Order: sequence, then C-alpha cells, then structure tokens
Amino acid sequence: MKKVKVGLLGLGNIGIGTYKILTQNTEKITGLSNSQIDIEKILVSDIHKKREIAVPKELLTTDAYEIINSPEIDVVVELIGGIDKAYEYIKAALLNGKHVATANKAVIATHGMELMNIAKQNRVLLLFEASVAGGIPIITAMMKPLCGNEFREIIGIVNGTTNYILTQMSENHMEYEVALKQAQEKGFAEADPSSDVEGEDAAYKLCILMLIAFGVYVDPKDIPREGITKISKEDIDFASNFGYKLKLLAGAKNSSGRLKYYVYPTLVAESHPLASVNNEFNALFIKGDAVGELMFYGRGAGSMPTGSAVVGDIVSIAKCIGTDLLNITPAQPYPITDETLELTGESKSMYYINFLVGDEPGALGKVSTAFGNHGISIQSVLQRSKGSNEVPVIYILHETKRKQLDDALADITNNNYVKEITSILRVLS
Amino acid sequence: MKKVKVGLLGLGNIGIGTYKILTQNTEKITGLSNSQIDIEKILVSDIHKKREIAVPKELLTTDAYEIINSPEIDVVVELIGGIDKAYEYIKAALLNGKHVATANKAVIATHGMELMNIAKQNRVLLLFEASVAGGIPIITAMMKPLCGNEFREIIGIVNGTTNYILTQMSENHMEYEVALKQAQEKGFAEADPSSDVEGEDAAYKLCILMLIAFGVYVDPKDIPREGITKISKEDIDFASNFGYKLKLLAGAKNSSGRLKYYVYPTLVAESHPLASVNNEFNALFIKGDAVGELMFYGRGAGSMPTGSAVVGDIVSIAKCIGTDLLNITPAQPYPITDETLELTGESKSMYYINFLVGDEPGALGKVSTAFGNHGISIQSVLQRSKGSNEVPVIYILHETKRKQLDDALADITNNNYVKEITSILRVLS
Repeated sequence: MKKVKVGLLGLGNIGIGTYKILTQNTEKITGLSNSQIDIEKILVSDIHKKREIAVPKELLTTDAYEIINSPEIDVVVELIGGIDKAYEYIKAALLNGKHVATANKAVIATHGMELMNIAKQNRVLLLFEASVAGGIPIITAMMKPLCGNEFREIIGIVNGTTNYILTQMSENHMEYEVALKQAQEKGFAEADPSSDVEGEDAAYKLCILMLIAFGVYVDPKDIPREGITKISKEDIDFASNFGYKLKLLAGAKNSSGRLKYYVYPTLVAESHPLASVNNEFNALFIKGDAVGELMFYGRGAGSMPTGSAVVGDIVSIAKCIGTDLLNITPAQPYPITDETLELTGESKSMYYINFLVGDEPGALGKVSTAFGNHGISIQSVLQRSKGSNEVPVIYILHETKRKQLDDALADITNNNYVKEITSILRVLS
Repeated sequence: MKKVKVGLLGLGNIGIGTYKILTQNTEKITGLSNSQIDIEKILVSDIHKKREIAVPKELLTTDAYEIINSPEIDVVVELIGGIDKAYEYIKAALLNGKHVATANKAVIATHGMELMNIAKQNRVLLLFEASVAGGIPIITAMMKPLCGNEFREIIGIVNGTTNYILTQMSENHMEYEVALKQAQEKGFAEADPSSDVEGEDAAYKLCILMLIAFGVYVDPKDIPREGITKISKEDIDFASNFGYKLKLLAGAKNSSGRLKYYVYPTLVAESHPLASVNNEFNALFIKGDAVGELMFYGRGAGSMPTGSAVVGDIVSIAKCIGTDLLNITPAQPYPITDETLELTGESKSMYYINFLVGDEPGALGKVSTAFGNHGISIQSVLQRSKGSNEVPVIYILHETKRKQLDDALADITNNNYVKEITSILRVLS
C-alpha cells in the first residue's frame, strides 16, 4: 500500500482535531484513500507543554524547516494561523515540492493567488477547504459536484462569533456588550474580538468564496464592510416586528457579469433559510444557474469540525500522490478571469432606517414625502410610542441606490424633520 | 486538449437539463475538467418527436447499442429510468470499458453492488450523485471532504412529492387527497403517485445513502417503511399544537455498530433544521463524529438541478480519463463491511398517538395508567372537545420500544378504554 507522510505545522485547536481524526478513524481513511497516512512530524512552540492528547514526544519539533525540508514528508499541513509566518512556510513547502493543506483564511485571502501559481508551477496541490466555514464542505462542493453551474449568488453566515452574539441579542433581548461578554465566557469570542465583530474575518472568507465561485480575486481590503458593534437590541426587536432576523452576511452576486460584494449586518426575512441559522452555526446559501438554490449548514469552527475539513484535503492529496493526475490537471482551483469588477456604489438594496422624531404631528408625512421626492418607495413603516417626546419611527424601503438614499437622508436631516438617524441597515431581497 | 466523448441514454427531463448545461456552460466546464467534453450520441425513443430544445438530428439514435458499443464513446450517461433496461445498458457499458454516470436511484439501489464490482474489475468509474436528492451534492460530500468522519446518523427529506403534499396539508389545512391533486396539477406528483407516497422512492434513496455513509448494503425491500396516504389534516394540526411539523423522513442511525433504518412519517420539532424544509425542497441532515451536525438543503428533482449533479459526475470522470488514477484507486465508493445488521423491532422511538375516546370521565386516567403499567412515560397530552360525544386525545410518549408500545395499546383497546386508535406516528428525538 502507498505510504503518505504528513507534517503538521501547529498543534493548537485545529491541529489537535486533525491529529485525533487521523489517529482515530484510521481504518476508514486508509480504505478510502488507498494509502497509509502517517503523521511524521509536528511543529510546536513548546515540546514540553501539557496537552489534552498524548502525542509521542519524538514527533514534536520546534523547527518548521525540519518538516518543510524533510525529504520524507509528502504533505505539509499549515495550522499555525496568522499571515507572515504561515505564508513563508507554505511558500517554502510548495517550492520544495510538498503538497499543502491549510485552514488559514487570512493567508489564502491575502497571498492565495501567488501561492496557487507556485503550486501549479511545482505540480503540487494547495487545498484549503477548512479555511471557510470549518466543517461545511463548500469549496469542494462548488469545485466538484456543482462545477457545471455558473454561480449567480453566494450569501454566507461565515462568522460564528458574530452569529452567536446576534442570536443572543435577538433571543434573550441582550445588548451587544452583554452578548459579547457571554460569547467570550463560552469561548465563542476571543479576548480581542475585533477581527470578528468588525467583519474582517468574514471578508477574508468572502474573498476565498468569490475566487472559487466566480474565479475572481478581490483584495479583502476592497470589500465594503460593516461590523456589528453598533447594532442595538432595539433594532433587532424592530426588525423582528417586521418579520426579519438580523444576520452578518458576507455576500457576492453576479448580475450579468458585474459583481456586487459586501459584508454587512442585514435583515433577513424569517421565511428565508438563512434566518434560522442560529448561535455559532454557519451557513452558505448559493444560487447556481442549473442547481437553483442550495444551502449548506453546519459548524464553522472548532477543533473537530475544522479538523474534518483538513483531513478531507489530506485524503484528496493522498489519492493523487503517485499518480500522473497532477501532470495534466491544473492545481489552481479555477481559471482566474480578468472580468471587470464594479464596486457597490451603484448597486441597489432594500434598507431599514430607524429615525428618532419629536412626538409632534407631521413628521411621518414629511419624511415619507421626502423619500417619495427622491424616487424611493416605502415598503412599511412602524411608529412606536415610547411614552416620551421622542419617538422611534422605522421605515423599510424598497430597493434603491445608496446614492439616492443618501440624498434623501441629507434632505430629511437638513430640514430637521427628524432628531436623529439612529441606524441604517440593509435588507436582503 | 483532452477530448472526452459522451453518449446520453435518454433525452427526457434530466437528459434535457444535462444537455443544456453541457452546451451552455461549456467554457467553465472545459476549464475545470481540462477536457473538451462533447456529446457524441443520444438515445431517444422517437427521433422526430418535438422537443423543447434544438438538438442536431444526427446526434439521435433509437439503438442503445450504437452508444454502448461505440469505440468513440468514453462515458455513457444513463437517464432512461426504470430498472431492467437501465441495468442491462449500464452493465454492458461497464463491461465495454465505458465510464458510467447515472441518475437512477432504483437501479443503483437494486443492482448497485454488482455494478460497482463490474466497474472495479473493468477499471472504470460508476458515479451516481444525481440518484439521491437531485442537485444536492450529498454523495460527493460524504465521499470526499467529509471522508474523515465516521457517520453517526443521516436523516433525509428525500422525496419532493411527499414533502410538497405534507407542506400544503400543514400550511393550507388541506386534506391529503386535495393536496395530492394540487401536487399532480403543478407537476410535483405523477399520475400514479404510489412509489412516492408509499415511501418506495425514499427507500431506494436511503439504501444508497447507507451504502455511502456506513458502507453497508440493505435491500430496499428490507427497509421498514410507511407512506403518507393515511396522514390526516387533523394529525398535522395536533402535531403543530405540540410544536412539531410532520415530515416523511428516511433515516439511518449507527448506534455502536448496530444500524437502525426506516422510512416513516415523523414529527419533527419546529426548532430542528429539517422542520423548515418545505414544499418540493429536499434536505439531508447528517451527524459525523468529527464534523458534528451538518445540513444540506436544495432542490431534489427537476431537469436542471438533477442535470447539475449529472454534469458534476461527467466532469469527475473526464478529469480521470487518460490518467493512471483508476489503476490504483478502487472505483467502489467505500469498502463494504460485513457488519451485522439489526432490524428495527428492538429499536426505540418517541411516539405520537391519536385516540378517539367517549366523552365520559376517567378515560384519560385509564389510558395514562395503562401506559405507566407498561413502563412507558408520557411527555404531553392534549384533549380537545369536538362538541360531540367522541373526543380526540393526543399523547406524545417518551422513547419506548415498539413491542412495549404494542403491548400497551393492546391492553388499552382490549379494555375498551378508547373507541379507536386513530393514528400512530413517530417523533424524531
């Protein structure tokens, strides 16, 4: 039987999951890959650290290049996270003719194009199923069984931290800070949660999804994004009144070759399958021209779910090792197009607007008229008395260009029809 | 560039979808497969029939063996449906060294083991992603990115006809016959709906899912099943009162190596992701030891969604053609185990029981006591006055063995505590 030797870079959360699956489900993995897959060496920062699993000491090393330069090792699995070191190690491994699997969204979103080219030139595979939505096999699904589709749209709940926080705010009527603290206590949010709550993590993942779905690379820095730090319990309750849930969506839509993409907190109708994706769960909703609507739902993070995706990649690589498949199939996931991209300034959306108005007659009429004057039509309005002389009024607006909306809002505030625009959120349509 | 020649057996619903995708999304398919995939010949029953798509007449033939025996053709795609002819053609094609893709659940569920062995001996691929849940890539997902998991359970809504009928009964308070008629008018049910509504179609699909998930073949005839023909609007409404939706589930669960499997109409708690799968949609809910809970949701039938899965298989085959991959990888999806199977007589379930009782004191107490005497505990009871002297009483029972339940029910009917047992349904726990 073919022997495949694996070097793990990193034995943290995902490294431990990967190690457990490879050592516990060995019989099935051997049968399906037709290979004996052995872990040859593991990079750690401290050999003597106490770990939740028993790993033979002789497997451990503190020198990454003992793995990357080893003539024995076929597959390097990068699980250290971060960008610079991970990039250095993956690049060196590919140049040494090693296949690479990684769970690192940041390094693929920032250096993926260069690394995929290096992989192709060196006739090795670079796989990264675990980099988006953990255990959900979205990348393989789009690349393989769904490859006959031209994808029209992909919308993801790809960050478990923010989805947990928004779910708690919605179900238990918590304010943002309280829900964040609870998420940190339960291990769903990090001590510094900024990359999650500000949408950076979701933007990395969206970048990778667009590469696979549309064959287009967009720098994560160029993805328009808003986080969830300014979301109030009040807005979530109002949204619920209108029949919507608030979710942090990472989306991209191909309208006749023009691509619109974003990471925004967005109102999702309760009847939409994404609305019922709660707590730390992730989901990907995709539309293909042939398959229609599909949704994948599961755990987007965690040691074992993410390890599951890493092991899937290792098995894919193992199957190819020793065959001539790599000589004739491009290692690159999809031919990159040079399609012209359009940023989202001109693109349309439905909107939810929360105004604070003085409790006096006429405000509702003036605001509504101002929207009409700017060609914006109103889907619904809700006015709630707070028992004070300041009253929130909520509008749900039909699709409008952002520029039109900004003009109307300038008009409304300049004329003092309202005291304050409390929030502006998008509505998925 | 590599050229791959395809022969289609059948140009019905799925054949047309497959033809459209291959001819419309050619550029993408060529890029991803690194192959020029051409349709060389198509089997039809009538060359001159008017079709919704324009197909060059010279591609059509009425002789299957013109395709199966053609030295030009690499891939035979079986889309004629039914069992006997499809089996004959697939077998002959494999023996001739052709790769085969099929959307035919009946032929794979009844002859799949033999056909997979023939494929393996002839070093060709036999793929059937389209045979279960149409466009949802469940087979590839379990075989590839999730292959590191030992699967614990798989529960599917795999029949769109019955799901449409049950959804209409629930949402629009229709009786079964009315909903069936509407399904037939909308093209979601066939003129003879028996294979769908009696659960046979779901049993075929479950057979294939068990083969992939557990490596175990169970004859579809040996899968315990109940259809939906006896489901009443009343039971759906009562279930809804308790917070449940009624779904036709095809499920299999591996409890420490013992397999329980079934096709039953089952009450599903509204908070469960399967509960919100409505109308003609399908979904697969799976539990893996590493990945945890995953759900795939999408269109389980239809020309384009099913064609999407067929094209995914054709591309997988095209990638392998001309490589030596097939010489060293088994064509069989998963090594078949000889694990001892246990039928479901001993297995436990929660139950929903609808009794008709006389409107007289004591009946509720007697029935409840009888359950207690047989060691069955009650989760909830609902009694509804109908304004007549016959009153329905609904019990939701905690997990019990079927044998225990039958003993208790015999006791209850023998002692005339109730006038009638109106229905017995399982509850997913």
